[in-house]
Amino acid sequence: VKYEDLMDFVTSIFVKLGVPEEHARWTADNLVTADLRGIGSHGVARLKRYVDGIVNGAVKTNPNIQVVREGPAYALIDGDSGLGQVVGRKAMELAIKKAKRNVFGAVGILHCNHIGRLGAYAQKAAEKNLIGIVACNASPAWVAPYGGKTRMLGTNPVSIAIPTGGEEPFLMDFATSIVAEGKVRVKFHEGKDIPEGWVIDKNGRPTTKPGDLYDGGALLSFGGHKGYAISLAIDLICGALTGAGCMVGSKTWIGNGVFMMAIDVEGFTSLDVYTKRVRDALNLVRSTPPAEGFAKVMVPGEPEFESKKKRLKEGIPIPDPIWDEIKKVASEFGVDIK
Amino acid sequence: VKYEDLMDFVTSIFVKLGVPEEHARWTADNLVTADLRGIGSHGVARLKRYVDGIVNGAVKTNPNIQVVREGPAYALIDGDSGLGQVVGRKAMELAIKKAKRNVFGAVGILHCNHIGRLGAYAQKAAEKNLIGIVACNASPAWVAPYGGKTRMLGTNPVSIAIPTGGEEPFLMDFATSIVAEGKVRVKFHEGKDIPEGWVIDKNGRPTTKPGDLYDGGALLSFGGHKGYAISLAIDLICGALTGAGCMVGSKTWIGNGVFMMAIDVEGFTSLDVYTKRVRDALNLVRSTPPAEGFAKVMVPGEPEFESKKKRLKEGIPIPDPIWDEIKKVASEFGVDIK
Repeated sequence: VKYEDLMDFVTSIFVKLGVPEEHARWTADNLVTADLRGIGSHGVARLKRYVDGIVNGAVKTNPNIQVVREGPAYALIDGDSGLGQVVGRKAMELAIKKAKRNVFGAVGILHCNHIGRLGAYAQKAAEKNLIGIVACNASPAWVAPYGGKTRMLGTNPVSIAIPTGGEEPFLMDFATSIVAEGKVRVKFHEGKDIPEGWVIDKNGRPTTKPGDLYDGGALLSFGGHKGYAISLAIDLICGALTGAGCMVGSKTWIGNGVFMMAIDVEGFTSLDVYTKRVRDALNLVRSTPPAEGFAKVMVPGEPEFESKKKRLKEGIPIPDPIWDEIKKVASEFGVDIK
Repeated sequence: VKYEDLMDFVTSIFVKLGVPEEHARWTADNLVTADLRGIGSHGVARLKRYVDGIVNGAVKTNPNIQVVREGPAYALIDGDSGLGQVVGRKAMELAIKKAKRNVFGAVGILHCNHIGRLGAYAQKAAEKNLIGIVACNASPAWVAPYGGKTRMLGTNPVSIAIPTGGEEPFLMDFATSIVAEGKVRVKFHEGKDIPEGWVIDKNGRPTTKPGDLYDGGALLSFGGHKGYAISLAIDLICGALTGAGCMVGSKTWIGNGVFMMAIDVEGFTSLDVYTKRVRDALNLVRSTPPAEGFAKVMVPGEPEFESKKKRLKEGIPIPDPIWDEIKKVASEFGVDIK
């Protein structure tokens, strides 16, 4: 599917549902760009869930987004259950505005729905020559704490974008679980094994059977006790500090608690000096001779940037079950999809 | 060795070297508390290197520490090559002061020597009921980037402390390498193998021989490409933004580039509400049934807190080679050690 066609389609669906045109486009952009970048788990595969959320009233199309606490360098935003992409975008715009004035701008969000691909917000800061840092907690709990055998934590992702003065920023963006739950689900449907270290079964034993996850098992954190600590810190900041609520132990969907930060590099040095330092460091890393089994060393964001370039040219591959779902949504709302 | 005796001894050594009494005590506290908490790699095992640094002039005993850039919520500090513990302590005090006024306080440091255990600074913020976040880059480069076969990155650690309203804060504090280089060195001296996944040899192949690290090999990041991304982000913020210099590719010791942040939770909610949310979440995590091979689920900082309680009572075990080194330093400077 062509990028533009998918963008127009998704935007039209949200407009049909009563979302203002500009907000519909922001939301579509977050989803379709995830697909462009090869992150299918955060792309149009989620459209049906967004549509359902609006139809059943969990997501408001015209929320009253308000700043409930504020200082020169921070704010707390109540998203009034709007689309996460709309609330998130406004929050990052506010963080950027504060950072441009006071070097630091941090914004917490409560009452936010699914915010989508975090990297989109961090990147927004980098496009304005700021460092962007975004984290959120995510429900339901899929991940066992280090040394534990039951699900307790969300996949609590984090993203950092750093301007390079070039085409694309340094962009790290990942879940603190070792893999997304969606990847285990794919292996399960394909009837294939998963590598050891992804999942434990209901008895807390390592397993390579993806089905064990859905039979009372749990995902593991990335990097053992270290990833676990980061995940828990994210919950205590994004959930407990904002008032959005912690994911620890949550069994149901309660939206994302979000924390965003923008840092103006010009508080520390000139933009040119900074981005040259960044480019030099990244080029040095890229020059590392590859280890066995690797073609080259890449920097965070590069694989996704390559996917984006390719898919803008060649179109976005959509798996059949998701395409069927999209066609159903299209016919339900009377919107054409090419 | 008793905690108080070791504190007095280390303090006296620094005073003999011309460090003001108060600064000597800060530095001793950072080192000896690491030993109390079971983090021998950052304890008195490093005393000789600190002494050498002062004797050879790399570390100034009476530095002219200056704020070179400043705003309501941030500052950049030039440490003038003072002891890292002195510069770091002053930097965190400034971050705390700014956070108490403006909710956020962030401080970068350049010209800083070895800053020691990062958790000490993050914890300082938590003791004042703030969230503390500290990261630094660390040289020389020991760590291969993901997919690469040569050393490029420092062990770039990060620490987050979160107040609990109780005795000890949530305290995460670790290197972004899978283990400290010191742990590989211990196995090497013992003639033992290391687990797969710690080190690659000079050809970029996985190895279980610790000697391969010292024959042109490299440490790996924790958590594969995710830990690598965090490590690189730390370098681009702590090194490139502060002007301290990036560790990417560095072959020599050039000190730590440091970034610290304090967040006043009372900008978001009352301290009581926040710390109750934190305690509830941590207690829920602790209640997770343990997985095979684990006695219980702990939260970050707990193992070190248990070590501290034990060692305050029973004394601190010091390995023989380090004890010999300490006795040599003691006799050289005419300071008694019990």
